[in-house]
Amino acid sequence: MRFRVDIRRREGLSDPEGVTTRRALRDLGYDAVADVHFGRTIYLDLDLDADDPDAATADVAEMCERLLANPVIEDYDIEVVG
Amino acid sequence: MRFRVDIRRREGLSDPEGVTTRRALRDLGYDAVADVHFGRTIYLDLDLDADDPDAATADVAEMCERLLANPVIEDYDIEVVG
Repeated sequence: MRFRVDIRRREGLSDPEGVTTRRALRDLGYDAVADVHFGRTIYLDLDLDADDPDAATADVAEMCERLLANPVIEDYDIEVVG
Repeated sequence: MRFRVDIRRREGLSDPEGVTTRRALRDLGYDAVADVHFGRTIYLDLDLDADDPDAATADVAEMCERLLANPVIEDYDIEVVG
């Protein structure tokens, strides 16, 4: 079972990588670029005996809290993708 | 108009961040974790006069080729999300 975890900085926190990229794109002539935000995506392939998406999603959420994300400054979404 | 760009390392290329994270998750007891891959997500907000998703998507693809992605080692997907 494949999971996709989207990790984004919480709303309201500064995103220096996004600010720099926005400036670089506008310097290249893309004047329509109003805002840029960066996130991380992690694809997890789990080998599961039982096909229980809810239990597996709960496991992935625990992995996010313990290791993958920084819950102080980041939000995450978990999606089953395969 | 908001675009989401998913950037992933091409299939077959090594992903040291993923390998290290897989090991760390298994060390934490998540034995079901078979594989981990990392990607980047970039959210772009564009201020457009005309609401032409195709033209705007082409612009975003050009931004990927010129600045956002590394086409030599990365693939990207562009999606209109708002």
